[in-house]
Amino acid sequence: MEQQKRTTTVSPLKTKFFEGDNNVSERTYRLQINTTLRTICVVGTQLKIALNSCAPVQSKFYSVKCTPNVQCQILSSVQAGNSLLSPQPLSKDTVLLVSMGAASLHPNDSKLSVRFYGNNSENLGSALLHLTAVEISLDVDADRDGVVERNNPNKASWKWGPNGHGAILLVNCDCESSYFKKVDTENEEVSKVSDLKDMSKMILRTSGPSELPEGYNLSLHISQTDAERVRIFRARTSKQAESSLKNMLLGLFQKEYPLVLSKKQLANAVPYQGGKSELVFYVEGLNFPDKDFDGLLTINLSLLEPVGKGFPETPIFTDKVMFRVAPWIMTPNTLRPLEVFVCSTRDNYEFLKGIKQLVQKSGLKLKICHEYMNRGDRWMQDELEFGYIDSPHHSFPVVLDSPRDGDLGEFPYDVLLGPDFGYVTRDALRKEVSSLDSFGNLEVSPPVTVNGKHYPLGRIIIGVAFPTTEDGRNMTKVVQDFLWAQKVQEPIALYSDWLVVGHVDEFMSFVPAPDRKGFRLLLASPNAAYKVFRALRHKGHGNAKMFPGTEEEVSVDDILSDKNFQVENSYVQSCIDWNRDVLKKELALDDEDIIDLPVLFKVIHENNRAVAFYPDMVNMIVLGNNLGIPKPFGPQVGGKCALETEMRSLLEPLGLNCNFIDDFAAYHKLLGEVHCGSNVRREPFPFKWWNIEL
Amino acid sequence: MEQQKRTTTVSPLKTKFFEGDNNVSERTYRLQINTTLRTICVVGTQLKIALNSCAPVQSKFYSVKCTPNVQCQILSSVQAGNSLLSPQPLSKDTVLLVSMGAASLHPNDSKLSVRFYGNNSENLGSALLHLTAVEISLDVDADRDGVVERNNPNKASWKWGPNGHGAILLVNCDCESSYFKKVDTENEEVSKVSDLKDMSKMILRTSGPSELPEGYNLSLHISQTDAERVRIFRARTSKQAESSLKNMLLGLFQKEYPLVLSKKQLANAVPYQGGKSELVFYVEGLNFPDKDFDGLLTINLSLLEPVGKGFPETPIFTDKVMFRVAPWIMTPNTLRPLEVFVCSTRDNYEFLKGIKQLVQKSGLKLKICHEYMNRGDRWMQDELEFGYIDSPHHSFPVVLDSPRDGDLGEFPYDVLLGPDFGYVTRDALRKEVSSLDSFGNLEVSPPVTVNGKHYPLGRIIIGVAFPTTEDGRNMTKVVQDFLWAQKVQEPIALYSDWLVVGHVDEFMSFVPAPDRKGFRLLLASPNAAYKVFRALRHKGHGNAKMFPGTEEEVSVDDILSDKNFQVENSYVQSCIDWNRDVLKKELALDDEDIIDLPVLFKVIHENNRAVAFYPDMVNMIVLGNNLGIPKPFGPQVGGKCALETEMRSLLEPLGLNCNFIDDFAAYHKLLGEVHCGSNVRREPFPFKWWNIEL
Repeated sequence: MEQQKRTTTVSPLKTKFFEGDNNVSERTYRLQINTTLRTICVVGTQLKIALNSCAPVQSKFYSVKCTPNVQCQILSSVQAGNSLLSPQPLSKDTVLLVSMGAASLHPNDSKLSVRFYGNNSENLGSALLHLTAVEISLDVDADRDGVVERNNPNKASWKWGPNGHGAILLVNCDCESSYFKKVDTENEEVSKVSDLKDMSKMILRTSGPSELPEGYNLSLHISQTDAERVRIFRARTSKQAESSLKNMLLGLFQKEYPLVLSKKQLANAVPYQGGKSELVFYVEGLNFPDKDFDGLLTINLSLLEPVGKGFPETPIFTDKVMFRVAPWIMTPNTLRPLEVFVCSTRDNYEFLKGIKQLVQKSGLKLKICHEYMNRGDRWMQDELEFGYIDSPHHSFPVVLDSPRDGDLGEFPYDVLLGPDFGYVTRDALRKEVSSLDSFGNLEVSPPVTVNGKHYPLGRIIIGVAFPTTEDGRNMTKVVQDFLWAQKVQEPIALYSDWLVVGHVDEFMSFVPAPDRKGFRLLLASPNAAYKVFRALRHKGHGNAKMFPGTEEEVSVDDILSDKNFQVENSYVQSCIDWNRDVLKKELALDDEDIIDLPVLFKVIHENNRAVAFYPDMVNMIVLGNNLGIPKPFGPQVGGKCALETEMRSLLEPLGLNCNFIDDFAAYHKLLGEVHCGSNVRREPFPFKWWNIEL
Repeated sequence: MEQQKRTTTVSPLKTKFFEGDNNVSERTYRLQINTTLRTICVVGTQLKIALNSCAPVQSKFYSVKCTPNVQCQILSSVQAGNSLLSPQPLSKDTVLLVSMGAASLHPNDSKLSVRFYGNNSENLGSALLHLTAVEISLDVDADRDGVVERNNPNKASWKWGPNGHGAILLVNCDCESSYFKKVDTENEEVSKVSDLKDMSKMILRTSGPSELPEGYNLSLHISQTDAERVRIFRARTSKQAESSLKNMLLGLFQKEYPLVLSKKQLANAVPYQGGKSELVFYVEGLNFPDKDFDGLLTINLSLLEPVGKGFPETPIFTDKVMFRVAPWIMTPNTLRPLEVFVCSTRDNYEFLKGIKQLVQKSGLKLKICHEYMNRGDRWMQDELEFGYIDSPHHSFPVVLDSPRDGDLGEFPYDVLLGPDFGYVTRDALRKEVSSLDSFGNLEVSPPVTVNGKHYPLGRIIIGVAFPTTEDGRNMTKVVQDFLWAQKVQEPIALYSDWLVVGHVDEFMSFVPAPDRKGFRLLLASPNAAYKVFRALRHKGHGNAKMFPGTEEEVSVDDILSDKNFQVENSYVQSCIDWNRDVLKKELALDDEDIIDLPVLFKVIHENNRAVAFYPDMVNMIVLGNNLGIPKPFGPQVGGKCALETEMRSLLEPLGLNCNFIDDFAAYHKLLGEVHCGSNVRREPFPFKWWNIEL
C-alpha cells in the first residue's frame, strides 16, 4: 500500500480519449462496509459514491486512500480540508467522485479504501473497492472523410451541411454474386470480400487488461425498429482467425464475418480483445429512407456488469453512434453521360442507326437490350430510372425499377443488378399502377436556388392529375412516398394526366447551357408551332407538306385552317402553361430560362387526352451538347424541314448540336419518341448530398 | 369605352387583402387574335401575357386599352414609352402584366384590349379579354388567438414557439351522444351543435359579383394521405338555410353541416356565395400524431376554370392552409388535482375509507368505479392514463386506454368517454402485451430544463427491459410509438423489468416542493431503509416489530441479520441507482432534487424479480400537498411507526402532509399499492404546447 496517493480536488477527468465530450457521465455507486467490491471504471466517466450510504450509524469522520491511477474528488457541505488520509468530518451529503486516468494493465489492479471513524476517532470499519480501468469507444466516420476516427464527440448525432457531422450508411442493394442473382440485402451472409466495401466500417476501440474482470461483457445492441433496417457483421478476431485459411479453402468465407446483429438478434456479445485493440464491424443498410423511416439509425455498445446468476447483467456504460442511410439520387440531363441504353426490336432499325451514330459521336458506350430480353417492349425510359447512392467510402449506381413491369420488367434485375450496380423497387398493387407510373413520368431538374433555398442536386419532377379531379390517374403512392422520403431532391408534382400516355417527358426536358443558370427548360409549345406555321404561310409556303410522301401528308394551309385542331392545341397550350407556371415558381425560373419548342398535339376523343401530332421534339435524348431529337417530318421548305430549321435556330446558339433521329414508325406511331425509347446512365454529382443544408 | 384608362408602370399590385405575401402569384395567360376571351383574375395575383404569342406574323406595334379596375404593366426590351394607347414597338419578349385592384361587381365587367399594327401603322387586328376580379382567401386561426383572422401570410406553414404560427386541430375523440356511445371521429356526421366546438373553424372569404362567370367553380381538396386524418364539414349557406328549420324538426340536423371532404372524397365543390361573404367550414382531426404521421395537414382551395366538356377544369388559383393536430399531453403530480378515481371491491373497505378522507381533506371529488363495472379489477392506475388536448379555441381531457385490458377494460370507454371527455387507445396484439403495458408504468415528470433545452410540459417516463437482455419484457411498440410521436413531452425509458410487476411507479414518484425546481423526485431506496433499521438497532430498538400482531411479524434485528435479504436489496438498490443516473441525466437533476424513501424489496425466486417487502411508500397518490402513502406497518417505537416517522421527517419540511392509508390486505398483498389502485385527473398546464421551441 506504499504507493497510495492523496488526491483531493482533481477536477473531473477529461483525457484526450474523450476530448470534446463535455458531459462526463456519472454513475451512482455504493460501497459496503467491511466488504471488498469490484467494478470497472470506464476512462472518461466517474463513479459517484455517497459515503454516508455505507457509513456505520455512528460514523463522524472518514478517510480515503487510493492507488495512483485512481483520482478522487470530495463534494461535501462540510469542509473537506486538504487531506483525505487524515480523518475528515463526514456529513450526510459527502460524496466521493472517482475517475481513472488510464487503462488498467491487470484486472482489479487499482484500489480505493474508505475508513470510517466515530466521535473519538475510533475505527468503525472500512469499505474497499477494487477497480479496473478500461477505455471503450465505438467509432464511425462521423466527420465523413472516409476514415473511422477515434471517438468523435458528435458521433451519436447527425447534422446536415458542410459544417455538419454524422456517419453514412449505404443500402447494400447491389449483388456480389454473378451466379445466384439476389440483392445483397437479401443475403444474411458476407459472401465476398468485395461485399464489405458496400458496408460502413465501425470500430470498437478498447484499451485495458488482457482480459476483463470475470463476468464483465461487451454487448452491441439496437432497437427493434432499427433492427429492421440494418445488419451488422464483424471481422473475426485474431484469436479466431487461426482456422480462417481452412475456412476459406472450404468455401466457408462467411464464417470469417459472423453476423452480429439483425432483426432476429437485437443484442449480441462482442469479444473483448485485451490490451490496446480494435474490433472492426461492417454495417449494412437494408432499407432506403421511406414514409415510415427517416433514414437515421443508432447503434449502441454497452459494458455489462455481472449481477448474479439469473439476473440480467447491468449496462454500466453505453456508447452510441448514429448513421444516416444514403438517399437514392437521380441525375439530370446536365450531368455527363456514361452509357446509353436502348432496345433492339424487329422494327426499329432506323431508330437504332440514328442512336448508334449519336452515341458514337458522343464517345459513349451503347448498351442494347435484345429482343429475347425485351420481348418487344421498347420503352427503355419507362421501365427504370438510373440513380446512385453515395458515401464518403463508396458510391455506386442504383436502378429504380418501375412498378410498370412491362415485358421489359426483368431487365433491371436480370441485367443491370450486379457487382457495384444496385437495384431498388417499390411494390404497388397491380390495380393501382397506371401509365403515370412509367418513369418517362419521373425526371429531375439541374441544380437550382429557389428563394434562397439551394437544391444543389436539383429537384425531382413527376406528373399527376389535378388534385381537384375525381377520376384522374396518378403515380402510385408507394413510389411517391419513396421519392419524397429521399429528401435531397425535393419533388415537384406537375400535371401530366392531360396526355394519353401521361408522362412529363412528353412536354418538358432540360438541356445544358453555357449561360444563366447553366441550363434551359424546354417546353413543348403548340403556340410556338403555330407561330412557325403562320410564318411559313406568310412567306408563301402554305402549300409545304408535312409527312411528305406518306398517307398522312398534310399542308401548312391545311393545318392552319383546321379550327378544331386549333382549339385542341389551345387547350394543350393551357395545360402546358399551367405546368410552366409551376416550374417557374418551384425552380425559380425566368421566362428567359425557358425555350418553347414548336410541337403540335391532337386530342383523342375517346378520353379527351392529348398525343403529339408529329414526333414530339421535346422528347429528346441529351448527351452533353449532342441532342438526339425525334425527326419531326415537318413542312419542306427549300429542301429543308422548317421545324428542324426552327429547332436549330432555337438550340444551336447554346452550343447544342441537333441530331434528328427517325423514330416515326417504331416509336412515334406507338405514342412514344426518342426519350421514351432510351435511357442514359450519368456521372454522379460532384456535390455530396450530405453537404446540403436541410 | 370612354372610361378606358392608360396605365403603364403600375407596380405589381399588393392590396391590404394580400398584405405580407411577397411572392405575387403569376399566371401565364394567352390572348387570341380577333377573339374575345374571358377569365377571372384573383385580386393579388397577376396575369402574365406574352403579346408576341398572339400577335399576327407581320405585327410591329401594339396598343393596350383597359377599364379602370384593370392595372397593366409592360415588360419589354424595347422602350415602352409613357403611353399604351398610342402604338408601341412590339418585341419578341413584350409582356403585359395584368392585375386587378378590387373585386368586380358583375361578371366580366372589366375589359382589356390589345391592338396590333404593321410596319405602316395599319391595324392587323385586336385581342380582347373580359375580366372578372374576385377576392379569395381560405382562412384559419394561424396566429393562435382563437379567432380566424383574414388571410394570415403564414397560414400555409407551421412553426413552433411563442414567435411561431400555424393553426391547430383537435382529434374529435370525445362523444357528444349520451345514447349511442361512439367516439365522434367514428361518426361521419355532425350530430349536435356542441360537436362543432371540438373542430377548428376554417373560413372561406370571398368578394366578387353575385355569381361567378359561367363554368367557374371553387373546389376544396386534400391529398390522399391527409384525407385519412381529417374530415371537413361546412355550414349551410344562407340560400340553403331555408329548409333548415324543417330539417331540424325532422331530426336531420346533420344536413345542416354537410360533409365536404373525407377519405372517400378528396375534392369537393364549395358554393360561391357572391358579394362579400364568408363560408364557414369545420375541420375535424381524426388521428393523433403517430409513427407515420407528423401531425401536419394541408387543406387547399382552388378556383377552377372551365376548359370544355369532357376536359378537367383547370385550377387557376390555389390557396393553402396548414393545421397541426394537437398532441395528447400527460399531467404530472405537480398539477392541481381535479378528480380522484378508485375502485370499490368487496375487500377494500379500509383503503376506500382512507382515500375518502384524503380526497375530502383535499376538497376534491371522489369517483368510485363499482364492482359491476370493475369486476374485481382494482388497478385503476393501470387501465388508463388521464391527459388532455388543447387548442386556442377549445380543450378537453382525453383518456389513453391501456392495451392491458383487464376486467376494468371497459371503464375508460363506457364510463369516461363522453361530451368533452375524449378517448384514445392503441391496439396491440394480445401476445405482445405484458405487465409493462399497464400505465403504472407510464408517468410524467414536472417541467424541467436540460442542457438549455426546455421541457415546459415535463417528460414522459416509461419502464422497459435492458436493451441488452434477450428475454426482457417491454412496453408494446404501438404505445411507445404513440408516446414518442406526441413530441412535446419527449419520453425517457427507464429500466423497470427487474420488478415482478415491472412498473416505474414501484420505485419513483414526484411531489411538489416550494424550492429548487418546484418538485422532488422520490425514489424507493433499500439503502435508506437499511439506514433507518440500523439506526433503530443502534438506539436499542432491535426488538421492535414490523407487521405487529400478524403472521408476518418480524423484528428489526431479524431483518438486519438476514444476509440473503441484504444481498437481494443491494441488487434492488443497484437497479434503482441505474434509473437514478438516467433520471439525473435526462431531467438534469442534482442529488439534492432527489429524496430516498426507505423501502425494502424481496426477490421472488421463480423469476428473480423484485416486489416490495412492506407497503411500497413511493407508490403514493399526490393531491397537491396532501400525500396518500401506503401505510408501511413498520417497527413500532414509542407507539409510533418508525417508517412513518422517517417519511414525515423527509417530506414535511417541504410542506407536504403525509397521510398513511392502509392498503395492506387489498392491494399490497396483491403486489400493488395506493398509486396502483387510484388515478387522478388534473388541471391542464397553463403553458400552451404550441409555444414550445422544438
